[in-house]
Amino acid sequence: MRFLFSISFLLSIISLSADDGYRLWLKYDKISNATALKNYSKKIKSIQITYDNTDIIQSAVHELQVGLQGLLSKEIPIASANHGAIILEKSPKVINNEGYWLTFDGKNIHIQSSSDKGILYGSFALLRTIQTLQPIENMDITDAPKIAIRMLNHWDNVNGTIERGYAGSSLWDWYDLPDVIDSRYIDYARANASIGINGTSVNNVNASARFLSQEYLKKVAALANVFRKYGIKTYLSVRFTSPIYLSGFKTADPLDPEVRQWWKNKATEIYALIPDFGGFVVKANSEGEPGPQDYHRTHADGANMLAEALAPYGGIVMWRAFVYKADLKNDRATESYTEFKPLDGQFNENVLVQVKNGPIDFQPREPFHPLFGAMPKTPLMMEFQITQEYLGFATHWVYLGTLFKEVLEADTYAQGKGSTVSKVIDGTLDHHQISGIAGVANTGSDRNWTGHTANQANWYSFGRLAWNPEMSASEIAKEWIRMTLTNDQNAVNKINDIMMNSREACVNYMTPIGLHHIMGEGIHFGPQPWLEKSGRMDWTAIYYHRADSAGLGFNRTSSGTGALNIYAPEVIAAWNDPDKIPLQYLLWFHHVDWNHRLSTGNTLWEELCKRYHDGIKQVDGFIDEWQSVKSFIDAETFYYIENKLKRQRWEAEWWKDACLLYFQTYSRMEIPSQYPKTNRSMDELKDLVKLYQMR
Amino acid sequence: MRFLFSISFLLSIISLSADDGYRLWLKYDKISNATALKNYSKKIKSIQITYDNTDIIQSAVHELQVGLQGLLSKEIPIASANHGAIILEKSPKVINNEGYWLTFDGKNIHIQSSSDKGILYGSFALLRTIQTLQPIENMDITDAPKIAIRMLNHWDNVNGTIERGYAGSSLWDWYDLPDVIDSRYIDYARANASIGINGTSVNNVNASARFLSQEYLKKVAALANVFRKYGIKTYLSVRFTSPIYLSGFKTADPLDPEVRQWWKNKATEIYALIPDFGGFVVKANSEGEPGPQDYHRTHADGANMLAEALAPYGGIVMWRAFVYKADLKNDRATESYTEFKPLDGQFNENVLVQVKNGPIDFQPREPFHPLFGAMPKTPLMMEFQITQEYLGFATHWVYLGTLFKEVLEADTYAQGKGSTVSKVIDGTLDHHQISGIAGVANTGSDRNWTGHTANQANWYSFGRLAWNPEMSASEIAKEWIRMTLTNDQNAVNKINDIMMNSREACVNYMTPIGLHHIMGEGIHFGPQPWLEKSGRMDWTAIYYHRADSAGLGFNRTSSGTGALNIYAPEVIAAWNDPDKIPLQYLLWFHHVDWNHRLSTGNTLWEELCKRYHDGIKQVDGFIDEWQSVKSFIDAETFYYIENKLKRQRWEAEWWKDACLLYFQTYSRMEIPSQYPKTNRSMDELKDLVKLYQMR
Repeated sequence: MRFLFSISFLLSIISLSADDGYRLWLKYDKISNATALKNYSKKIKSIQITYDNTDIIQSAVHELQVGLQGLLSKEIPIASANHGAIILEKSPKVINNEGYWLTFDGKNIHIQSSSDKGILYGSFALLRTIQTLQPIENMDITDAPKIAIRMLNHWDNVNGTIERGYAGSSLWDWYDLPDVIDSRYIDYARANASIGINGTSVNNVNASARFLSQEYLKKVAALANVFRKYGIKTYLSVRFTSPIYLSGFKTADPLDPEVRQWWKNKATEIYALIPDFGGFVVKANSEGEPGPQDYHRTHADGANMLAEALAPYGGIVMWRAFVYKADLKNDRATESYTEFKPLDGQFNENVLVQVKNGPIDFQPREPFHPLFGAMPKTPLMMEFQITQEYLGFATHWVYLGTLFKEVLEADTYAQGKGSTVSKVIDGTLDHHQISGIAGVANTGSDRNWTGHTANQANWYSFGRLAWNPEMSASEIAKEWIRMTLTNDQNAVNKINDIMMNSREACVNYMTPIGLHHIMGEGIHFGPQPWLEKSGRMDWTAIYYHRADSAGLGFNRTSSGTGALNIYAPEVIAAWNDPDKIPLQYLLWFHHVDWNHRLSTGNTLWEELCKRYHDGIKQVDGFIDEWQSVKSFIDAETFYYIENKLKRQRWEAEWWKDACLLYFQTYSRMEIPSQYPKTNRSMDELKDLVKLYQMR
Repeated sequence: MRFLFSISFLLSIISLSADDGYRLWLKYDKISNATALKNYSKKIKSIQITYDNTDIIQSAVHELQVGLQGLLSKEIPIASANHGAIILEKSPKVINNEGYWLTFDGKNIHIQSSSDKGILYGSFALLRTIQTLQPIENMDITDAPKIAIRMLNHWDNVNGTIERGYAGSSLWDWYDLPDVIDSRYIDYARANASIGINGTSVNNVNASARFLSQEYLKKVAALANVFRKYGIKTYLSVRFTSPIYLSGFKTADPLDPEVRQWWKNKATEIYALIPDFGGFVVKANSEGEPGPQDYHRTHADGANMLAEALAPYGGIVMWRAFVYKADLKNDRATESYTEFKPLDGQFNENVLVQVKNGPIDFQPREPFHPLFGAMPKTPLMMEFQITQEYLGFATHWVYLGTLFKEVLEADTYAQGKGSTVSKVIDGTLDHHQISGIAGVANTGSDRNWTGHTANQANWYSFGRLAWNPEMSASEIAKEWIRMTLTNDQNAVNKINDIMMNSREACVNYMTPIGLHHIMGEGIHFGPQPWLEKSGRMDWTAIYYHRADSAGLGFNRTSSGTGALNIYAPEVIAAWNDPDKIPLQYLLWFHHVDWNHRLSTGNTLWEELCKRYHDGIKQVDGFIDEWQSVKSFIDAETFYYIENKLKRQRWEAEWWKDACLLYFQTYSRMEIPSQYPKTNRSMDELKDLVKLYQMR
């Protein structure tokens, strides 16, 4: 009996060729364009090394060999040929220690640098050039990073969980370390090096004192041994009271000589194990973490004690400015500024103050943090959040390149027009010797690293922008798409379109027109604008949206909390008038009448309804656009993202319904009839939130 | 300049061919033995299906095609050829609904069954036969499972963490479900089906009420849709007070008519979404979980209410017997017996009582649970723990096949000699219609699924023994080795030797001679025999080891707690005399003088010292044996296990030192001089424990 048979789609896509996302943007699949393949192949036949045989050079050569073997489908031996060779060579002409010079002289490709790290970065640049099918005939690329310290912050706990992690558990297996080196550690380092990241802090800023024990330092050293081969320094988040925990001290007072000596000894111990140790990340006197204020000392006292201990070894302290007192008297948006601004000039040379991009906490959109530009005597580090704590976890496709750029390009006017956040960060505005940028990682043990294949682009774009804040978000997105998904020009454009609009869509369906912090308590991916009680007033939603029968929004002008007034006069001027402030910040700074007519011609209520529905429409658009590129995408990846978008659509609708129905109880106006009616009730929506909050 | 170059070992092993363990035992690599390959290839050319086109048949065909394509390195089309075909056919001759008949008639291979599930199991059996290079010339295998319900219990939480999980985070992404079906769900189902597992309970027994909401049931249904294609039923752990949580009830009293109706309605709702839903797993009135006793009802009242709700749909209740009162009056080892034995005969027909293998809690070694054989009117289910909560987490290579067998073969003497636990479980001893066995899963999001590649064998052996408890642990180990690591006969024997001795080694370096529950509080992989205070007396170590200046061990005879007396007279007779009881249970039941001479000729103290050192020596032996098979093992796998063994060795020494130095404070005798002296002090060892317990 003959039988017509069809294996279901689900089964068919798990064939061996399906892509599970593990390889990130380092795919190295054979180039499918025959002309391009032939062209590259002709020019690349071997690798020649005229540089010292360092571990980093070995990493570069390994990457070139693996990458080119994949891309060109042929072995690239190490040889001394003088035609068709990639020559890795030392060049004093490349001044920046991490920069490289990449050229083709008609016969050979040259990767030149004054350091092995530069050679490594140049090697990745060459691979990227080929992966994205760029011509190499006239290649003459000089590139060097604009920010010195470009690092990931992992909020990983000793038990393997990750605070605000949505991609599985920690990459680090503390039980098995230092003995077991998971091959994933190497792939992690490769991925970081490929985008220029040169530092990583491996543990949560809510830090366990364990990490400073000899036992754990050995484990950290084992990771550092891997990362070092890729030019990555290892950092640790430290608990300020470690001397108490680890050595039974009665105090951790930063002015106590014994405490100071303890940290000096500890630094010596660390550097004996990790000679290139980067330094400490510190969250102090914030959200329950201990700090110098517990001993009536300042943040500067605390930071300088650690800085003094690390200084002999070249280590640095990254002291976080994310603080807000539990006994809230002022607007939370001013807290960090109020505490840190007076300390400007009091920090040691090897201290950076690490400031979140906005004054609250990684919301879908915030104005730039008022400390940027306000502490000229202190090198300020940027802290971005790559993990999407408030942007839909790993479920929503939200490209953060545009968010990062928006902040970097914001003008602080600290020294007149053009005093962008970017220039504060890279040290050029105030002539600082050190500069840094950190991203809170979105990586975890999930096979695709980031819990959503498309959000690998956020790790990627963070790294690329840390290297060069001048790159455009779209340019970076396109690189990533070509390396990760497809080189088809039309498909690249369509996917780029999704990415470039994705964050605005998220803002629209979550917190449009300057709304913020209206997410669910304990479930930051869902809405809870009705949240009116919490452990602290500034953990509620009503503290921030201030909805009432008159209108909506947080008055932070002089007639309100006055928080706007800590910005530069030019910024105040631009944002002080509710009719002139960019709509995206309107409700952040102003309480606006429901019937107030905005620049769009709509009343606030109409605009609010429009924006929430726009957000949904945009996701619908992404779904359609994604369908249109189906034939260019690996089947498993396509199917995975297709279904992620469905879930995103569902959650977007949840936000839209919850927020509009709730705000409607204040506006007492109908949702304009052009929008589809929801058939859900407030009670249903509240129950749904409660369900996701249930034990 | 020519340059001699060597890529480091670490780098070289992450080439594309390295094995990250993801494929488990379903490797399907091309057969390297040329003769065998030729022989199989000649006999297998196509697949012919004369069975209905069900989803399960599709799964079988897909697996055969993928598997054979890999093993034989050629495509196996679906065709109607009558020579060289694998014919999937219905056969009424195979009585057991899940059984199969696998034959070769000289021309074709026949996989016959009365059900599509049988065909699926037969297909995996054929693949296993080929993977392990068994001859098929005279193949005539009839096989059927001896236990009806063979399931995994996942202790996975809604937030993605896994209670007692050491392999990353949960496999289930509750945020993305029901929309996103991770391809890993399919691979999970394939792996389970390949070893005959036909049920899975997806959430922690400390259950969230969320799972019974419509919202979450849809998510569970999406998983069930995948599992169903592989003959796997989906079960849920339920929170007894769900009506209170989900519907605002004032009570969850199992005799309350409205509560009973709530559960009936809930069952109807579940089966509308999951027509083949398996049933409920319930942890009630145990360790803080709510249950019928909160309403002065019995476990039977509670179980029967749920059973009544599920009965119309064929669902079952698995009611866990793991209970022990907080106000401990008796020996904890008798608690479960005391509560459940009187209820024998009171449970509905579709209730199974799920009993852990031993009376305490998954210790490295326990005598069999006294309830086995003691409740003839109730079908008892076995609960094994595959995850190594007390056996070194995912760091230690401990093959549990021998542990499982030891328990299954234990004789309860309930109906005279030969009344093994195995016969209690499979229902033959007391003629029960339903029978079941559960294993607490060791799976997680780690790329190798189980956190230690070698411990994939524990998942494997659980499934194989659930199917057929008569198989030997060694036979199963060898199957697994051949499928996972190597087919080289000599290497198979050496690895089998490691595996067969691995659990005894673990018992030796952790809890020899019947010691138990002396692990660290909150860190169950480490030692803390000195633990004398905890939330409850029976959470300490001293409660169990009862060390004093006279001797060591827990007197559970009539002169002690009398816990031994709840076993059958034959068992009591065998274990009552400290000079006759098998040494492995000695300190479980007897307090023995330090100087008491044992059957080995050693005093207790000498034997204790010997056993702890034996454990270390055994791990040293494993390290040597593993080195000796290096050339037969994939490089990444070899390196990974090699280093895991180093860490295991380190922890074994920690146990040995901590336990011997501590017990020495009671024995006041020297550690015999033939053993290497430790240079660690008790204080150091205690500090190490404290460190791993530090926030």
